Amino acid sequence: MFQPLFGDAEMGALLEDRAAIAAMLRAEAALAQAQARLGIIPEDAASAIAAAAGSLRPDPVALGPGVARAGIAAQPVIAALKEAVGVHAAWVHFGATSQDIVDTGLVLQLTEATALLRDRLSRLIALLSEKAAKYADLPIPAHTRFQTAAPTTLGAKIAIWAAPLQRQSERLEQLLPRLLVLSLFGAAGSAAALGPQVDRLRQDMADRLGIGVTEMPWHSSRDNIAELAGWLAMLTGALGKVGVDLVLLSQSELAQLSAGTGGASSTMPQKSNPVAAETLVTLARLNAGDLGTLHQAMVHANERDGSALGIEWSVFPAMLERAAASLRIALDLAATLRADEDRIAQGFAADRGVMMSETAGFILCREMPRAEALTIVAQALREVEASPDLTLAAALSRVRPDHDWASLLAPEVNIGQAAEIARQPQSPREDDQT
Amino acid sequence: MFQPLFGDAEMGALLEDRAAIAAMLRAEAALAQAQARLGIIPEDAASAIAAAAGSLRPDPVALGPGVARAGIAAQPVIAALKEAVGVHAAWVHFGATSQDIVDTGLVLQLTEATALLRDRLSRLIALLSEKAAKYADLPIPAHTRFQTAAPTTLGAKIAIWAAPLQRQSERLEQLLPRLLVLSLFGAAGSAAALGPQVDRLRQDMADRLGIGVTEMPWHSSRDNIAELAGWLAMLTGALGKVGVDLVLLSQSELAQLSAGTGGASSTMPQKSNPVAAETLVTLARLNAGDLGTLHQAMVHANERDGSALGIEWSVFPAMLERAAASLRIALDLAATLRADEDRIAQGFAADRGVMMSETAGFILCREMPRAEALTIVAQALREVEASPDLTLAAALSRVRPDHDWASLLAPEVNIGQAAEIARQPQSPREDDQT
Amino acid sequence: MFQPLFGDAEMGALLEDRAAIAAMLRAEAALAQAQARLGIIPEDAASAIAAAAGSLRPDPVALGPGVARAGIAAQPVIAALKEAVGVHAAWVHFGATSQDIVDTGLVLQLTEATALLRDRLSRLIALLSEKAAKYADLPIPAHTRFQTAAPTTLGAKIAIWAAPLQRQSERLEQLLPRLLVLSLFGAAGSAAALGPQVDRLRQDMADRLGIGVTEMPWHSSRDNIAELAGWLAMLTGALGKVGVDLVLLSQSELAQLSAGTGGASSTMPQKSNPVAAETLVTLARLNAGDLGTLHQAMVHANERDGSALGIEWSVFPAMLERAAASLRIALDLAATLRADEDRIAQGFAADRGVMMSETAGFILCREMPRAEALTIVAQALREVEASPDLTLAAALSRVRPDHDWASLLAPEVNIGQAAEIARQPQSPREDDQT
Amino acid sequence: MFQPLFGDAEMGALLEDRAAIAAMLRAEAALAQAQARLGIIPEDAASAIAAAAGSLRPDPVALGPGVARAGIAAQPVIAALKEAVGVHAAWVHFGATSQDIVDTGLVLQLTEATALLRDRLSRLIALLSEKAAKYADLPIPAHTRFQTAAPTTLGAKIAIWAAPLQRQSERLEQLLPRLLVLSLFGAAGSAAALGPQVDRLRQDMADRLGIGVTEMPWHSSRDNIAELAGWLAMLTGALGKVGVDLVLLSQSELAQLSAGTGGASSTMPQKSNPVAAETLVTLARLNAGDLGTLHQAMVHANERDGSALGIEWSVFPAMLERAAASLRIALDLAATLRADEDRIAQGFAADRGVMMSETAGFILCREMPRAEALTIVAQALREVEASPDLTLAAALSRVRPDHDWASLLAPEVNIGQAAEIARQPQSPREDDQT
Repeated sequence: MFQPLFGDAEMGALLEDRAAIAAMLRAEAALAQAQARLGIIPEDAASAIAAAAGSLRPDPVALGPGVARAGIAAQPVIAALKEAVGVHAAWVHFGATSQDIVDTGLVLQLTEATALLRDRLSRLIALLSEKAAKYADLPIPAHTRFQTAAPTTLGAKIAIWAAPLQRQSERLEQLLPRLLVLSLFGAAGSAAALGPQVDRLRQDMADRLGIGVTEMPWHSSRDNIAELAGWLAMLTGALGKVGVDLVLLSQSELAQLSAGTGGASSTMPQKSNPVAAETLVTLARLNAGDLGTLHQAMVHANERDGSALGIEWSVFPAMLERAAASLRIALDLAATLRADEDRIAQGFAADRGVMMSETAGFILCREMPRAEALTIVAQALREVEASPDLTLAAALSRVRPDHDWASLLAPEVNIGQAAEIARQPQSPREDDQT
Repeated sequence: MFQPLFGDAEMGALLEDRAAIAAMLRAEAALAQAQARLGIIPEDAASAIAAAAGSLRPDPVALGPGVARAGIAAQPVIAALKEAVGVHAAWVHFGATSQDIVDTGLVLQLTEATALLRDRLSRLIALLSEKAAKYADLPIPAHTRFQTAAPTTLGAKIAIWAAPLQRQSERLEQLLPRLLVLSLFGAAGSAAALGPQVDRLRQDMADRLGIGVTEMPWHSSRDNIAELAGWLAMLTGALGKVGVDLVLLSQSELAQLSAGTGGASSTMPQKSNPVAAETLVTLARLNAGDLGTLHQAMVHANERDGSALGIEWSVFPAMLERAAASLRIALDLAATLRADEDRIAQGFAADRGVMMSETAGFILCREMPRAEALTIVAQALREVEASPDLTLAAALSRVRPDHDWASLLAPEVNIGQAAEIARQPQSPREDDQT
Repeated sequence: MFQPLFGDAEMGALLEDRAAIAAMLRAEAALAQAQARLGIIPEDAASAIAAAAGSLRPDPVALGPGVARAGIAAQPVIAALKEAVGVHAAWVHFGATSQDIVDTGLVLQLTEATALLRDRLSRLIALLSEKAAKYADLPIPAHTRFQTAAPTTLGAKIAIWAAPLQRQSERLEQLLPRLLVLSLFGAAGSAAALGPQVDRLRQDMADRLGIGVTEMPWHSSRDNIAELAGWLAMLTGALGKVGVDLVLLSQSELAQLSAGTGGASSTMPQKSNPVAAETLVTLARLNAGDLGTLHQAMVHANERDGSALGIEWSVFPAMLERAAASLRIALDLAATLRADEDRIAQGFAADRGVMMSETAGFILCREMPRAEALTIVAQALREVEASPDLTLAAALSRVRPDHDWASLLAPEVNIGQAAEIARQPQSPREDDQT
Repeated sequence: MFQPLFGDAEMGALLEDRAAIAAMLRAEAALAQAQARLGIIPEDAASAIAAAAGSLRPDPVALGPGVARAGIAAQPVIAALKEAVGVHAAWVHFGATSQDIVDTGLVLQLTEATALLRDRLSRLIALLSEKAAKYADLPIPAHTRFQTAAPTTLGAKIAIWAAPLQRQSERLEQLLPRLLVLSLFGAAGSAAALGPQVDRLRQDMADRLGIGVTEMPWHSSRDNIAELAGWLAMLTGALGKVGVDLVLLSQSELAQLSAGTGGASSTMPQKSNPVAAETLVTLARLNAGDLGTLHQAMVHANERDGSALGIEWSVFPAMLERAAASLRIALDLAATLRADEDRIAQGFAADRGVMMSETAGFILCREMPRAEALTIVAQALREVEASPDLTLAAALSRVRPDHDWASLLAPEVNIGQAAEIARQPQSPREDDQT
């Protein structure tokens, strides 16, 4: 029921039990074929295994009790494969250990899952760049510590949302070669039962599966999993920041931005709840928490620790799905993002120039000692506070009538580099050069 | 696929979407009936609503898009109910807000879920008491900081597993009255649209649902949820301690205890993996992590914060299911728990009495200054370490031949209160008196 | 440097190393005195130990290397005490284990720490009750999901802040008897070295220390610690909710509430940052995270697990100090809380009655079918949205001129039970009856 | 008191308040000097500021109240600097915002802190490589799921400990360029008050400080902080795995490895507690938990969110110090690591060849169908279990006397690639090529 809210159908399909089973079967098929090529197992056995692995679609629910008995998903899958190949059963999973199959299967799923995330991430960066350029020059009040601060532009805000996403692109390229590697090391990690040609076997098997190889067993070294989890949480965290910004800027009292289609209330007809933006925050906090939990699984005893692996199996798929959901939601929000220029203007008007105080000080200190300048500004601020209709520009004009304060303090001439920031090139490629 | 390993079918059934929907519909039915009784809505509308709520079984998947739009599960359920009652639609959910229905529905589910947990908990305490009594006098080495320490008895170990569970019984009785209460406060928490009889309305509705009432809106006060989550994590944590103890005591090199049926290996025929015990550790660590995440949702903005509620909805059901799974697994482990007295004896033999060093010191210091006693023991320990076949008793007999050291240092006479501890009454009721 | 911001001097003093050492020494003194009274150790040894324990003030920094070697704080303290008593050294810590002393010392510290928290909590509840009563009738817009919803009163908001605090009072009374108990069980938890009178010994020692007793060793059962940690996190979480509400309601664009003295900016003279309210949120999130970490320590191996205890020792004191800091900050915020009635009125005016839509629907449906009533309201809402100066009351007057809509929709007559909620008795005592 | 156990003096010195203050003052000095060079502020002001910044050593405790008022550490530091420069005060911190100074100061501290970690990490990798080579050929039982599995070598175990550390070297080189960059963006992130030459100003200031530049404000984008935190937790997690392995392999019943100097017990003279190894586990779990908490701070509102920053300030230094402590402890453990070859041999002997079952099956299946081979092994295993003195080799010799089973099943000829794994080049540089 909550899947369309917090989940993602496309990623869900890549991660569901059937996909995990299919990935493990692909691993077994590639193992058998590579072993046959090297003369380790008979050719006909390999053919039978590959054929069966390709067509076998065991019911995950039916495998459940086997998983519970073995404490690992591969075992009932292997049992089903053995049964399916009949006389060739003895050559199924030859020399490997369950963890090899679970981890190689996981890597196959991650190959697809990270491709999906990369694609959405690129599209989101592009979309945000477009919106940043569109609103590059539109002044909007910055808020620091929940108070209006000084003007920036909406484009700069959006570009700042995109900046961590570009870094995420860069990070992903750096981590994938470490992560997307075969596991084939046998029961004790020594590959003893895999025979003397194991290095060639690994390379052949990996080539068939389109993944990399490593010589170091990683049954009990889960840093690459933790690294991807960290990446997922950084991603949802960066989008959680977008979410909280949208929630705050679309509050009834501000309503400077809108994005997405507002959620209706069951009883209040006027409501337009920022459901999607809130969900970005929810997903960020869930992934943050799960990241901490997943890191507990790095304390992995000996050559295999079922208590640690169970933590991974429980939280990692959820983190991946949340990352995909966050990107999907963010894409929709970015596409529909719209500034309400009237409300922004009202925001500036209601502020009466108070947020330009720092600027006023800088202008004045060009012509007098800074301390004196700040005293004048402080006095003007007090007057503004006391008179509900007075602007800072008007207050300053009383004491320093020689300047056109209204023009000097207009937000659009006080945005510094905001427009440039908004127009920074946002392609992952250019960023790679830095 | 992992549900039989990490999940629980019975609890799963109480928490699944269909059960949540049914609970919300029960809440709407009770609201309508109570309102009709007080003359707030027409009798025939209430009858129609109650009838429809009782028979409506909307497909959760079909409701998903509605949940995603509204950001809350109640809305599409209410919409379906309105559609089902046709002309009476205007009286459905009259004066209530979605959160009232979600929370009251949750409380109905928690009523059943906590009853299930309480029942399993009582049975587990009883079973552990039985086992503690059975093994009350069987000496077994205690281990402190992963080193053999001094003897205790297996019964005492088991009683110490049970002690936090008894406290959990006590805690549950204390927290349930706070938790199992109706929510009916309307959009802003002021009950403005619920009319002047709202106190009576709440009491009537709560009576129909078999839950309590409170006058304070708890839409945005989530301490009771956090409290139950803490209880769930304390439960799985206490059972995680049982799990780690079983894992350690059933290591190949110790094998002093066995429990459950060992998990087989895909490649090593001799293996008997402690899958169930490992799973208790996994579930404990997952609930520990989720508890931290859930507490983040206590920072709940204003009268309703969708970003915080989403955290609850995502992690709370998982925590409940893990608690049920832990209890189910622990019940199975407790029932099949068996000491291997030979291996325990081997453990004592291999230790050669070294773990009796503290005892030896206490015996000697009855007849000499303590410092002198400790010097003698230290010397004996060095001799034992140097001679692979020497026992501490034999070493001490050399210097203090006047004692029957083998008898004095026999584990079974050096268990202090362990047997008493093992036989402590373990019923929740008696503990309540303390 | 951050201590005045995130810490608490008074709680810090109760928890600092010197206080922990003093508490352990008190435990050793009471042990010796109780043992002397029962004839277990010589009277003069006990007197010497008690005297030395009372005057010894070892430098914590000097003990550090000893703590690192032993992995537990008690050992260098015991060593220092032994050295101080010279010839009586052999009777120091007689029959006890380090963990007994660390845990009993902790309980002594917790006795004072929970008293401090209880006192602040009571004062905060009283202060919030007072403020709730003061503002019981002042309408203020409720916000659900970051959108204005319908009116409530400021008093009701404040009372809702206080409600979980009252439950916290109740919870504290329930948990303290479980928590504040002596630990005296010896190396293996069997009390073997403590002699046959150990039950009387425990009672005597506990009486001297003003704490309770338990017959069950809790060296490795850490549920009581986890329970208090949960209580601390519920407390900071409930105050984090107050913090986020104050942050949101004091945003420049709302400024309906002020509390505390605003933080200044280093560069923007107009800023008044809600530092204290933000800090409540920070402390809540830190304690939430630490709670999850602390629960990891419930997976405690065998009779003593140094890896688990280290987690407790690292995070528990920080959680206690944050709870004290949150209460201190909340007391200051509650004392200085002030409504800006003009800004609240401006908020209602800017809303133009839109948040009364639900109410308008309920009024109309008294005289027409509800569907028709909702249609009229929806139409009026569209008109209001289209005309910047139109109020909902004016729009409705056009179609239903027979009602005085401005009066009917005035916030102050549409606050339901808010004033009653605000005036609920807030004393912990009365709540105890429920 | 716990600092020597859980902390690190060297890292502690880099992170303490005085160091943070000095780093902020360095940032202010570099800002002033760069501004003077570009003609933005007077030369004599810059000289005075740089001189004062270099000599000012404010007492952190005295700054505490200022930090609490402002909610940020930079403000009282800036105030102290202004006071110190007297007439030049107006040119201190010219155009910058507090967050610029806090973050640039942090980057300066991180430059030193990451250098310290990198150095220790390199030394640890080198030391582990040496030990791995030394024990490359020493067979030792592998354990999967807490049961003996099949032989590996101690060298392979150690190399597997080192492998994630090498990946950590690689990761560190990749992340540092993103992390070690100046912050200079002014109040609203637009650099409006920093003048038109701000790009050159940043470059000049960064050059003076030896750090990089970025054009994108990162006041509210905390991914780089989260990334380093993830790296720290991966590091402590990888070392926590070393810790748990050492704890398990040094249990009294195994004692196959020793490392570090054992912790003494306060009462049991024979104890040698694995305090250092346990501490690696503690530190890993603490950093795992804090990582989750720190990621909560990525949900950072608007241009600056004090509630999120406070989380960083509280947990980030602790994570850094734990990483340094873990490395220091691991260096000591690695240096003192020693295999007890007798106890390892006893372990193999006690196993009676059972862990060679998989191997036996592979040998037999060269000469018969695999199913038949497995049947023979299973039968032999049953006999071994039934006869306490029978080895698997002897049992197989009964049915297949044509092989020299004792030789075939000797651990040292069944270690597969373990020795090769142990001798993998462990330099970060070579790994970089992959």
